[in-house]
Amino acid sequence: MIKVTVWNEFQHEKTDADVAAIYPKGIHGAIAEFLGRNEEIQVRTATLDDPDCGLTQDVLDDTDVLIWWGHMAHDRVPDDVVVRVKESVLKGMGMIFLHSGHHSKPFKALMGTTCNLTWREDGDMERVWVTAPAHPIVQGIGRYFELDGEETYGEPFGIPEPDEVIMIGWFSGGEVFRSGCTFHRGNGKIFYFQPGHETFPIFYNENVQKIIHNAVYWAKPVLRIPELLCPHVKKPGTENE
Amino acid sequence: MIKVTVWNEFQHEKTDADVAAIYPKGIHGAIAEFLGRNEEIQVRTATLDDPDCGLTQDVLDDTDVLIWWGHMAHDRVPDDVVVRVKESVLKGMGMIFLHSGHHSKPFKALMGTTCNLTWREDGDMERVWVTAPAHPIVQGIGRYFELDGEETYGEPFGIPEPDEVIMIGWFSGGEVFRSGCTFHRGNGKIFYFQPGHETFPIFYNENVQKIIHNAVYWAKPVLRIPELLCPHVKKPGTENE
Amino acid sequence: MIKVTVWNEFQHEKTDADVAAIYPKGIHGAIAEFLGRNEEIQVRTATLDDPDCGLTQDVLDDTDVLIWWGHMAHDRVPDDVVVRVKESVLKGMGMIFLHSGHHSKPFKALMGTTCNLTWREDGDMERVWVTAPAHPIVQGIGRYFELDGEETYGEPFGIPEPDEVIMIGWFSGGEVFRSGCTFHRGNGKIFYFQPGHETFPIFYNENVQKIIHNAVYWAKPVLRIPELLCPHVKKPGTENE
Amino acid sequence: MIKVTVWNEFQHEKTDADVAAIYPKGIHGAIAEFLGRNEEIQVRTATLDDPDCGLTQDVLDDTDVLIWWGHMAHDRVPDDVVVRVKESVLKGMGMIFLHSGHHSKPFKALMGTTCNLTWREDGDMERVWVTAPAHPIVQGIGRYFELDGEETYGEPFGIPEPDEVIMIGWFSGGEVFRSGCTFHRGNGKIFYFQPGHETFPIFYNENVQKIIHNAVYWAKPVLRIPELLCPHVKKPGTENE
Repeated sequence: MIKVTVWNEFQHEKTDADVAAIYPKGIHGAIAEFLGRNEEIQVRTATLDDPDCGLTQDVLDDTDVLIWWGHMAHDRVPDDVVVRVKESVLKGMGMIFLHSGHHSKPFKALMGTTCNLTWREDGDMERVWVTAPAHPIVQGIGRYFELDGEETYGEPFGIPEPDEVIMIGWFSGGEVFRSGCTFHRGNGKIFYFQPGHETFPIFYNENVQKIIHNAVYWAKPVLRIPELLCPHVKKPGTENE
Repeated sequence: MIKVTVWNEFQHEKTDADVAAIYPKGIHGAIAEFLGRNEEIQVRTATLDDPDCGLTQDVLDDTDVLIWWGHMAHDRVPDDVVVRVKESVLKGMGMIFLHSGHHSKPFKALMGTTCNLTWREDGDMERVWVTAPAHPIVQGIGRYFELDGEETYGEPFGIPEPDEVIMIGWFSGGEVFRSGCTFHRGNGKIFYFQPGHETFPIFYNENVQKIIHNAVYWAKPVLRIPELLCPHVKKPGTENE
Repeated sequence: MIKVTVWNEFQHEKTDADVAAIYPKGIHGAIAEFLGRNEEIQVRTATLDDPDCGLTQDVLDDTDVLIWWGHMAHDRVPDDVVVRVKESVLKGMGMIFLHSGHHSKPFKALMGTTCNLTWREDGDMERVWVTAPAHPIVQGIGRYFELDGEETYGEPFGIPEPDEVIMIGWFSGGEVFRSGCTFHRGNGKIFYFQPGHETFPIFYNENVQKIIHNAVYWAKPVLRIPELLCPHVKKPGTENE
Repeated sequence: MIKVTVWNEFQHEKTDADVAAIYPKGIHGAIAEFLGRNEEIQVRTATLDDPDCGLTQDVLDDTDVLIWWGHMAHDRVPDDVVVRVKESVLKGMGMIFLHSGHHSKPFKALMGTTCNLTWREDGDMERVWVTAPAHPIVQGIGRYFELDGEETYGEPFGIPEPDEVIMIGWFSGGEVFRSGCTFHRGNGKIFYFQPGHETFPIFYNENVQKIIHNAVYWAKPVLRIPELLCPHVKKPGTENE
């Protein structure tokens, strides 16, 4: 059993009728639904307006993989929540950042960089190319898949060099973007995945669903520790080490 | 001309006679002295007790490479100074973190990890091995160099995978440590160098001096930008792009 | 079921009584024995003196993970065997190189570098430190483990920057070495593990066995392809693509 | 003074009138011409039909940076030349591989992988995006530059994870490609740059020229050694070490 928490800012869906029409149960609801079809995955959701953003220490300790979507209200996530999330990753929790989550506080805190990019909203077609065919996250995807419309993200993307660039996006208007990037930080694995603008039905796309589903398996913890320590030690091999 | 600012917490030297005896002008003074012998390098120093830690935006904008030593008072560095330093690196400033600077706020903010390690103070001899002989930072160093006494740092070192591990330390008591690590974040280059405990005359060692001197040249900016932007763009090739 | 082929040069055991006394069934026999205790692993062995080194295309196609030990007869491995092994890795087969396998033809062909190092045979004690505690290969190992006697390997180790350095060795005589290194090349995963000199009973050590056992699981293929192609393609999205 | 040798297969120009019309002095001649305008660079050329491909040990020992263009006759480069070139890089010589040089023997030998890709010849427009604006090789280039026509290269590109992906190409027909990749192997630095098909006047493009010119400076040796050794050593610190 893999325990997944899907966190969504859940603001656009409450204030924008077009977005609400696409995601009547919220983006978190859409993601929880397709992941929940797998009986090995136990899904919970949490949103910005929940107490403590729904991300208490108890919830995080009980989460194997945290999925994060945020956009218009990054600043409203309290810093203590950010610290808890970041430290949970360093202890071993897996984390998947979607689309505009590139500018979320936890992603920026884990990367240490601006995570800036260029962007346009012209409804470009995007073709997402697989650059690392043997990576577990892209199994079942062909050479590429297409999204009829998506917000355009462009390079340079202000991230540290990823462990692997596993997908690169081609936009019909002329940009490219490192759309699938893996990182590990402390004991935790991190996957950034670019598709997912709120005004397009991206999370109903079967390739997008397959990739997120694969990423849940890839990101689940190998080792999880209770505390982050910088220990004073004895000389190795001494009796009271 | 390379403009270097040497930042030292400068607390041990004021409160501990043994440290003061080793570094009568402070650790920053010792570093500034050997760097200043090179006429191509213009050195300035700054310390914790200076207004704004001596690190105003003007000083940072006028600094090519910032060297950082801190240990007992990491928490007293104000967060706005940390943000300024971090953003200066992302804009292009080079940065060298020495020894216990692994736990400084700017290093942790740039790495996104705990930067934890294990440690002992038993006066171990350290032999620092060069693992990347062609790296600019280790030119003039042989296969290894030795420090008669040093605080022992041990793995695991809680950092992201470095761009290159260029030195590994062997401690007589039994530990190993990735003692020389390079990173790049945004436009800036970062070097972490492990030797330099305050109770040993490490910064008078000619190999240590040569390495820091080389690192200044290595870390100086290639490109420096005035602002960190996430721009809304026009379609490439359009008239008003 | 994971299909493992253990390849051993198998020369020292035939010509040196001391080695034969330690490994009466050969190094391959010792490794096959402890892996074979796990019913999920199906082990086969192959040696230099077998026809085609025991590594026909059929054998390789039927191998998930190939383990390689060689030392005194690297040059006697025919080039066509080397090409088959290398291409099998690029197609997806996992591979584990042990100890002096650093100078085997397949390892050098996959790395593209000299794979040189420094070495001494003084019976040093080695303490192998875990530097990446969350890596699957080191699960069940503590902070470190010790080998009473081992050939000493020292830096610089002439390899490309590994994906991850997961272990570093400390030798009582004064050297350090990147003892556990992971790489991926094409579709295949590669693990280099330094312990295993033929004159010491290294492969009976329970930590060494645990690490090799873990590595078999880690290296097993995610994707395996029948051919290595550089295809002429049609424009994406066209009918006859 | 930087000593550059430009190696060109020089076959298309002799057999194809269209190519000869674009490059009357050969591709090597065109590259040598723009590099030679800089008085700090001393350029020599060499081609496949020269004795020893023009790449004797003396020539290589006297070369700081070797530039390589090849396409239709990769197999005609003798293996001993390949070994010499590869070993020169590992000793410290810089190397720049252009376009179809991705399938040259020296590139494949240094990478250890297939270096395969997908390709089409439909005269696509290519827009090359800078993904690492602070890298020395892309200084003076804007956010991107365009090539009116170029052979299309597509992912997946069968290389080891580069040190840095500094450019990504967008092709009008729909593909993406990691067009600028840096590596280091042994003491040598390697740059792969995708533009340069023989049927387009790519090497007269000012951005392409600027990038190759920058790359020459970037790739010049930091350390160059006369021999590749795997030395038997004495214990460090012993008298006769």
